[in-house]
This record gives sequence, C-alpha cells and structure tokens, in this order.
Amino acid sequence: MWLLAARRLWGAGYLSTRGRSVSTGGVVEMWPGGSVDKFGAVTVRLQPGHQRDEAAFRSWLQGALKRWREEGRIAVWLHIPIMLSGLITCAASEGFTFHHAENDTSTLTLWLKNGPNKLPGYATHQVGVAGAVLDEVSGKVLVVQDRNKTVNAWKFPGGLSDPGEDIGATVVREVLEETGIKSEFQSLLSIRQQHNHPGAFGKSDMYFICRMKPLSYNINFCPQECLKCEWMDLKELAYTSRTTPVTSRIAKLLFYGYKEGFHNIDLPMRTFPAVYSRLFYSLYHKELPAAYEVQE
Amino acid sequence: MWLLAARRLWGAGYLSTRGRSVSTGGVVEMWPGGSVDKFGAVTVRLQPGHQRDEAAFRSWLQGALKRWREEGRIAVWLHIPIMLSGLITCAASEGFTFHHAENDTSTLTLWLKNGPNKLPGYATHQVGVAGAVLDEVSGKVLVVQDRNKTVNAWKFPGGLSDPGEDIGATVVREVLEETGIKSEFQSLLSIRQQHNHPGAFGKSDMYFICRMKPLSYNINFCPQECLKCEWMDLKELAYTSRTTPVTSRIAKLLFYGYKEGFHNIDLPMRTFPAVYSRLFYSLYHKELPAAYEVQE
Repeated sequence: MWLLAARRLWGAGYLSTRGRSVSTGGVVEMWPGGSVDKFGAVTVRLQPGHQRDEAAFRSWLQGALKRWREEGRIAVWLHIPIMLSGLITCAASEGFTFHHAENDTSTLTLWLKNGPNKLPGYATHQVGVAGAVLDEVSGKVLVVQDRNKTVNAWKFPGGLSDPGEDIGATVVREVLEETGIKSEFQSLLSIRQQHNHPGAFGKSDMYFICRMKPLSYNINFCPQECLKCEWMDLKELAYTSRTTPVTSRIAKLLFYGYKEGFHNIDLPMRTFPAVYSRLFYSLYHKELPAAYEVQE
Repeated sequence: MWLLAARRLWGAGYLSTRGRSVSTGGVVEMWPGGSVDKFGAVTVRLQPGHQRDEAAFRSWLQGALKRWREEGRIAVWLHIPIMLSGLITCAASEGFTFHHAENDTSTLTLWLKNGPNKLPGYATHQVGVAGAVLDEVSGKVLVVQDRNKTVNAWKFPGGLSDPGEDIGATVVREVLEETGIKSEFQSLLSIRQQHNHPGAFGKSDMYFICRMKPLSYNINFCPQECLKCEWMDLKELAYTSRTTPVTSRIAKLLFYGYKEGFHNIDLPMRTFPAVYSRLFYSLYHKELPAAYEVQE
C-alpha cells in the first residue's frame, strides 16, 4: 500500500529533488552520491563534466547500490547526459532500464525492493485535436479529405498538439494550417481515447473534437495534406456514408446542437490558477447555471 | 507545407516501417543500411547482436549520413538496444538527439534538411482520473483528504492511468485502492488540461473527473494515502471552503445534476471499433437524442 501511495503521490507531483545527501564513499568528485526523496528513492544526476571511465563508474555504481540497499532505499533515478551514454551500459548491467529520454539526457531507473516496480511511468498519451468549424448562417461545416488516409471519407481538419500547447490553441493552428480558415474556439464536444496507437509509437491517443466559429471563409487548403476541402451542409455530413464513424457521430451531435441549441452539446472552457505552478489550467464541463454558483 | 504534412501524417499513424532498402556501402553485416518510409526518412534498427565498436560505427554512420543526404533523405530514426548505448555518443557527435527511450531501447533522431525538425514528437501527456462517487439515496459523495497534499482539503479519490488503461478502468481501480469502495462508471463530467506538471516530469497532465455509482458503502481507506475518507453531503462539499477549486466546481456541477437530472451534466461513453487496429476506442460526448441517430 505504501508503494502504491508513493507511486500515486509521485504521479501527483510530489517527486522531490531535494533531500539529504547520501554517503558517497569518497568518490563524490567523480560522481554525485545522490539525494534521497521523501519516498526513499535516490536521485543521481551525472553532469556532462563527469568522467566517462566505464570501469570506474561500474565499480562506483556497484558500491553505491550495495550501500543504498543497506540503507533501505527503494529505487534509484539515474540521469545521464547523452555524451556519457557509454555509462548506460554499465547501469544496464546492474539492472537499470530506461524510464525516458529526451533531447540530450536519458533517465534510467532501478527498483531496489522486492515485488513489482512502483515508480511512476512517463507520459502515456499523445493529444490530437479536430475542429468542427460551423458557419451558422449557411449551416455549412468545414470538411477535408486527407491525401494519405481513408479514400473519399470526409472528416474535420485537425492534428497533434505541440508540447505544452492547449487543445484550444492546437485546433485554431491546425485548422488554419490545413484549410487556410481562421477560426475561434467555442467549446469541447467530444473526447476519444485509443490505445496502442501506431502513430503514437505504440502509446495511447487522446483525441478532442471542438466546436469552432469561422472568422474567415475562403478556403486555401494544404495540397500536401488534403485531396479536397470544402464547406459541406452539416445535415449532409451527418447522414452521408462518405465519412468516418466518429465524424458522422459528432456531425449528428453538432446538427442536434445547431437545431436545438448548442447548450445541449457544449462543454465550455474556463481557466483556473494551478496549485502546483504559476500557470493556469483549462477546465471543461457542461455549463453550470448561475443559481448553483453560490449557495441559496 | 510538405513537412508539416509529413509531421501530421506521422502523428496520425502513418510512419511506415516498410520501405525500400538503402545502399549500405557494403557494411550491412555490421549495421543495417536502414529502410526508407514514405516521407523519405531512414529508419535504422540496431540489434543486440550488432558489434559495439564505436570507432567503426562512427565511420560507418558518417558515410551513411553522407549518402542519405546525397539521396535527399529528410531524417534518420536510429533505434539502439541499451547494451549498445556506447554507440549513442557516436550518434550524438553527429548531431543525433534522443526522441524517446523505454525499457531496453532508445530512439534517436537526426533531421537532415534545413529548417526546424518536423518529426513527430513522443507522448506529451500523463492521464489522471478522479471519481465522484455519489450515493443517490443519501445524497452523500465519497471524499478523501490526501496525506501528503493540501491540508484539510477534501477531494475526490483518484490517480494516474496505467499504460493502455481506459479512464473508466482507472477510476474504478483507483477509487477501490484508495477508499475500499467498489464503484461503477456512469459518465465523464469534466476534463482539465495542465502543462509543465511537476509530477509529469515537466510534461502535461490531462485530468478526467467521472461520475461513479457506488457498489459498496463500507470505507476501508489506504492510510498511506489518505488522512481521512468519508461520505460527505454533496451540498456541503459543493459550498465548503475546505476543498480545492476544481473539486468545489465539479461538486456544484454534480449537485446541479443530482437536483435537475444527470442528463444535464453527463458525457456518456460509447465504444467504436478502431480504424487502425483491431481494438476498440472509447468516445465521450453529450447524449444524442434518438431522433438524430437517423435522418428523418
């Protein structure tokens, strides 16, 4: 249970890089002795300046692992600069595996206790966003046919979020890049979760479909991405067979909102200050009637 | 535009591992010559059996890069088994950086063209899920106070999704692990997106709050995770100051649904067959009236 707790708390943002120093057996000049977080895991951050002597690192690591086990540490986080990657093989020989790697650093972990590794995993999902851009005056919605996808299937324009990009920003950017249409985020309509996605390196895909308001109307689509791009009657898209199951379903939902009020289908977005950072976060849910904002 | 297209199509699941073989300059026995995907990127997969001679690999890589540039290739994907990690430094010397790494393999990339790297990124989000477990008979909702978080703040139990785990499965598992309460997924209520999350190794966090139906009522909470766990009157949670902004807001939303019908707040889930795999995916959106299922 404790380990479950640790795993969950790490995941919730409580992996501390502070911690008391651990005895290093006098080789601190060569490699850092590491710091211990609140869960009892040791973190070692090698610096580009550390020496690359693999034999010396192996013997230091073996001694350190022996001490850490004696001290009851539960796991080791080992951060290695890319130019010291030769040391990765030494760590792997001691049982370390990759946790993640990005740019010029890799992070390896070793679970020191019995039983399954309870350390938190790395990011599991890519995020994709599509925009249902509806011209409420004409009742037409912006659709594309991808050059490299299902033939003759109309769909909403969209693409993947860049790192740190909100879904509302992604959909505006992707709709413009793909179709040349400027648009404004109105609401979130639907979420799709899919696992083992071939385009996500086997990871999971979270796909968001947003309702968008057009700010321009002249199509100038990207010929490398799209075979066709046009404003199509929403009802036609909702009931044609020349589309994907998700597009068809969301087109029906959008048609329902268009006929009976978007409040029936919308998840508006609000921003709140984040607790763990100075940033804001975006929250999406059905509109809350004002009467419920305060206690009557 | 083409590169944008390539990036998007890769992201959409079109990175092909098939492709015609590339001339290897006669060292194919030592290292694979690589295959070229439809976008003109070369993929090289080193095998654990390949030799670890760094000098020989560097000279082979330098020759291969020269050829690939002459052949107009746009990028290189280099997959390296962990026990050959010494070769990573050779690749880094030629400009390669980590794209990602997991378990016993790292993947490096090098962009061969001018301008910014347009290769698709790796997973950007962790997924967390919380459950608002409401006993409709008593009007009480299951709440916890985390041992290691904001003092005296009531919140809904929850935690991080495991790889490949649907949010509906995560919330049932986490509510049980944290509180001992068995529950059943009813609907999705809210989504929160947050970036640069300290608990996500600087990546983004996507947090889902679900409406749950209790299947048991006797609390047996995890003392390592929770200071307190109780069934609290929903209206009290909605209007108390002893909670987090998101919990308060979703409690108000849930109270609205409890008073005026959950159809006002629910995003039910449906599963559809996935196009790119034999799996199913989960789709969440407002209920679609039957009249809109078929064209009148």
